[in-house]
Amino acid sequence: MYRTHTCGELRLSNAGETVTLSGWIQASRDLGGMTFIDLRDRYGITQLVFNMEDEPVLCQQARKMGREFVIQVTGVVRERTSKNPNRPTGDIEIVASELKTLNASKVPPFTIEDETDGGEELRMKYRYLDIRRTPVKDKLIFRAKVALETRKFLSGEGFVEVETPNLIKSTPEGARDFVVPSRVNAGQFYALPQSPQTFKQILMVAGMDRYFQIVKCFRDEDLRADRQPEFTQIDCEMAFVTREDVLNVFEALTRHLFSTILSIDLGAFPRMSYDDAMSRYGSDKPDVRFGMEFVEFNDLAKGKGFSVFEDAELVVGILVPGQAETYSNKMLNDLTEWVKRPQIGAKGLVNIKFSVDGSVKSSVGKYYSEEELKQWGQRAGANPNDMLLILSGETDRVRKQLNELRLEMGTRLGLRDAKVYKPLWVLDFPLLEWIEESQRFHAMHHPFTSPKTADIDRMLDGDHETMKNLRADAYDLVINGVEIGGGSIRIHDRALQEKNFKLLGFTPEQAESQFGFLLGAFEFGAPPHGGIAFGFDRLCAMMKGETSIRDFIAFPKNNMGRDMMIDAPSTIDDIQLKELSLTLRKKE
Amino acid sequence: MYRTHTCGELRLSNAGETVTLSGWIQASRDLGGMTFIDLRDRYGITQLVFNMEDEPVLCQQARKMGREFVIQVTGVVRERTSKNPNRPTGDIEIVASELKTLNASKVPPFTIEDETDGGEELRMKYRYLDIRRTPVKDKLIFRAKVALETRKFLSGEGFVEVETPNLIKSTPEGARDFVVPSRVNAGQFYALPQSPQTFKQILMVAGMDRYFQIVKCFRDEDLRADRQPEFTQIDCEMAFVTREDVLNVFEALTRHLFSTILSIDLGAFPRMSYDDAMSRYGSDKPDVRFGMEFVEFNDLAKGKGFSVFEDAELVVGILVPGQAETYSNKMLNDLTEWVKRPQIGAKGLVNIKFSVDGSVKSSVGKYYSEEELKQWGQRAGANPNDMLLILSGETDRVRKQLNELRLEMGTRLGLRDAKVYKPLWVLDFPLLEWIEESQRFHAMHHPFTSPKTADIDRMLDGDHETMKNLRADAYDLVINGVEIGGGSIRIHDRALQEKNFKLLGFTPEQAESQFGFLLGAFEFGAPPHGGIAFGFDRLCAMMKGETSIRDFIAFPKNNMGRDMMIDAPSTIDDIQLKELSLTLRKKE
Repeated sequence: MYRTHTCGELRLSNAGETVTLSGWIQASRDLGGMTFIDLRDRYGITQLVFNMEDEPVLCQQARKMGREFVIQVTGVVRERTSKNPNRPTGDIEIVASELKTLNASKVPPFTIEDETDGGEELRMKYRYLDIRRTPVKDKLIFRAKVALETRKFLSGEGFVEVETPNLIKSTPEGARDFVVPSRVNAGQFYALPQSPQTFKQILMVAGMDRYFQIVKCFRDEDLRADRQPEFTQIDCEMAFVTREDVLNVFEALTRHLFSTILSIDLGAFPRMSYDDAMSRYGSDKPDVRFGMEFVEFNDLAKGKGFSVFEDAELVVGILVPGQAETYSNKMLNDLTEWVKRPQIGAKGLVNIKFSVDGSVKSSVGKYYSEEELKQWGQRAGANPNDMLLILSGETDRVRKQLNELRLEMGTRLGLRDAKVYKPLWVLDFPLLEWIEESQRFHAMHHPFTSPKTADIDRMLDGDHETMKNLRADAYDLVINGVEIGGGSIRIHDRALQEKNFKLLGFTPEQAESQFGFLLGAFEFGAPPHGGIAFGFDRLCAMMKGETSIRDFIAFPKNNMGRDMMIDAPSTIDDIQLKELSLTLRKKE
Repeated sequence: MYRTHTCGELRLSNAGETVTLSGWIQASRDLGGMTFIDLRDRYGITQLVFNMEDEPVLCQQARKMGREFVIQVTGVVRERTSKNPNRPTGDIEIVASELKTLNASKVPPFTIEDETDGGEELRMKYRYLDIRRTPVKDKLIFRAKVALETRKFLSGEGFVEVETPNLIKSTPEGARDFVVPSRVNAGQFYALPQSPQTFKQILMVAGMDRYFQIVKCFRDEDLRADRQPEFTQIDCEMAFVTREDVLNVFEALTRHLFSTILSIDLGAFPRMSYDDAMSRYGSDKPDVRFGMEFVEFNDLAKGKGFSVFEDAELVVGILVPGQAETYSNKMLNDLTEWVKRPQIGAKGLVNIKFSVDGSVKSSVGKYYSEEELKQWGQRAGANPNDMLLILSGETDRVRKQLNELRLEMGTRLGLRDAKVYKPLWVLDFPLLEWIEESQRFHAMHHPFTSPKTADIDRMLDGDHETMKNLRADAYDLVINGVEIGGGSIRIHDRALQEKNFKLLGFTPEQAESQFGFLLGAFEFGAPPHGGIAFGFDRLCAMMKGETSIRDFIAFPKNNMGRDMMIDAPSTIDDIQLKELSLTLRKKE
């Protein structure tokens, strides 16, 4: 037996008891006559006292032990003279009478403290030391709690967790698959699932009615910051449902998680169409913690001789409250440079300041009279000291740019508090997205998404513009501008699914070879169904008010897809390759 | 809205209500004036009535619908005149007033009944139809329930579920890894985990204290019946524990699952050493639902001129109760043939029958007097009508053979009731296993298993025999002769781990390149730790009294590792291969 208690549980009521603790040395202080050791485990920190007078051998021994040594100590619990109110065990200490080193430790390469001096690379390489740090450890424990609550809630709602296979079939649609060569079936490959999409639909055809799974998914993408090749989803599907049913269940799940785990009542979630989101925020995942909604000015902007606006498809701005006096020309110039960076790509930035004294100043003052500029202000609902920031250009592009500017201004004005949570359902996404590169339509959500009933008839007959305007019965859950989940009502009719494949450029042969099993299943009594998937890593990070998912994953990979701790991927030996009927391609 | 109720919930108390149901047509009976349809969903079956007189159009429509059509029906709940007591909804029926086909169905290739006429191949190809069958559906729901209860229990005990990565590093020890070529790191490969072993140990070094995970694992083995390339484990690890701590927690988990889910009290689990299990049952996973323990007869057998016994290392038998009169010479000859089959491989079978009249008969009667044979009976505790079955030969081999015979006789005598559950801890496994083929020792459990403290000193110095007798601090949980789980106390000391690697034939370079991260972690304060993993598929099957795991997996693969439904694995195109820097090896 290594311990009678953990390092987090002893209280004043335990005073006088003889206890045994095991843990890591967090810190040690040698005060001559006494040596104090802070002993740490997952549950907390308890102070140990070694008395030079009473136990000189033990005390000498304790002094030789370094940080992160693993020790076992036995002693009597005693009330502390100088209590530490910041620590749950801060009222007591253990007067040590036995001490044993369970394992020594080299000096760790970075400090095991809430704020560490270790850089990202070092922390990843020594992840086992990094996880000893309270912030990282707490995030993993938090994640486990969210997972368990999700499972309890969905199980309570009649959902059955079904494990779908990891060794499936490669399909070129979507992102790149990771593939797994089969030894037994030489020359053939499994793929790791990007999502259990087809399997969960198959489970609906199979009559499982309500399915969920917290499940690892895999995407071989070129990794951007904060993308991981393996990530986790809360994946769900329901039969005999309309959009309303799905939204209600997963709004309830989200509310439950926030109320149970964070004691936050999210209230009813507002809803917004994709079109509204784009015109009001320039984004399909608007951060609605703050206003500054887009205001369009085409009618006021045009016909006054300002060529930039004359040539623009859209002139649109945001009203920044209370900043007219604050933003000097210098600051506005800097902001103009900011929007002109390649990441944003605007050509320039127009401002109109509504001064406290009632005057109006603008960078385009020579084209517009003060009266005219006041009209702009009226439209935007400007108050004295407010400032309009205006961009112009091609509609889609300028909206994207103004979205970035809006978020930046929100951040600068402190309107994006990580502890304030504003959920939003975004609805009625386009069914198709025209991709210039491939010169064809791609599914905006995925090929199994149902068009809205009203749009089905127009699916194959329409021209390019009609196709662009087809609406899908798809929905996203957005919280604080972060896409937490997305889903749709699915196609459950073979003919419609074939039509959709055709629209997406599949030949009938391709559709059959990749998704024949699903098309086949639709012929044997497929019920209407729909579902959703939440990004679990992202949900956990967002609930904790963090922007990076990395510390919510126990062993994340770096931007090159490498596990720095175990040093994977790595080469394999020729025998293994040969068994898999593979050879490495020579570099060209 | 597709339904107001499911097909499993309406009762007599709902009579008079107008309801809407959706589901599949299980069966339909046309009685002229009336048509009855059994409507099925996951939750049950409800009877629909169509009245030719009142609703002729509707009734005609209903008659055209085939099995497995998906329909939506609205009607009034009515008390049935002839109730069906075998069905929870059997007191009522729905008098249909509206009917809608949600999807048609082709005639299914096998019957959707508890007992189906579909063969294994067909059932796998149309798994979505197979899962509609109650026995398969119930097994998946059962599995989900066991998983949820496991998570609740372990979380309640302070275990944190941590997801370990699926894209890890290939290590040649153990079974074959599935590998995943990395596109970004050309020529390099990830491996899919055979278990999260090293990661869970790293989590202990990281101070997580109590870890668990219900996790998919992967093994590229030549598939035997009832082995799957991907399978699920309940994987656990604890820090600052001895064997006793681990056994207590997982005995409690097992008891909890049986009592909560099956209302069965397993009581305290008996324990047995590996050596005892081998000498008493010839197996490290004895089925202790019945007796027939091994009885050794070397002293009585030898020196009487029977050359088979003279040459044998071990003469050992089982006492079959109450069968002496039943087993004719013909039956005994058949049994002899049975043990001589290559799967068992015995050279012959000796019997001694203790008749009801007190006489003793034996196939080796000419070598032993009746008095001598009675001594054999006394040792075995024979009663009248009992029968001794005796094998002889090389110890390990004959024990294995007699184990098979014992299980066969247990089955024949009906002593292996699938609904009777007898758990057993098997302890103190050998550390090493000599493999003739590779002419070296292999780890019997895995290379991270700690030897028993008393055996550490003998680890490197001993001769072959000493090495064979080293004991590991390893344990298995066996229920009804099925290995449910296994685990061990781990090595947490770098020097000891290096010693063990050396013993297993690793060069220091190999140990470093494969497990350097773990050896490194042991230098930074690794706590004593140990753990266990349960085979989750097997546990579920065993709890349900089934021997095959296949229907406890939603989408299992066949013996060639193929998914028959989606037809995976499959070829991938050249572009994909090229991106992965791979070419297919020409057939030689």
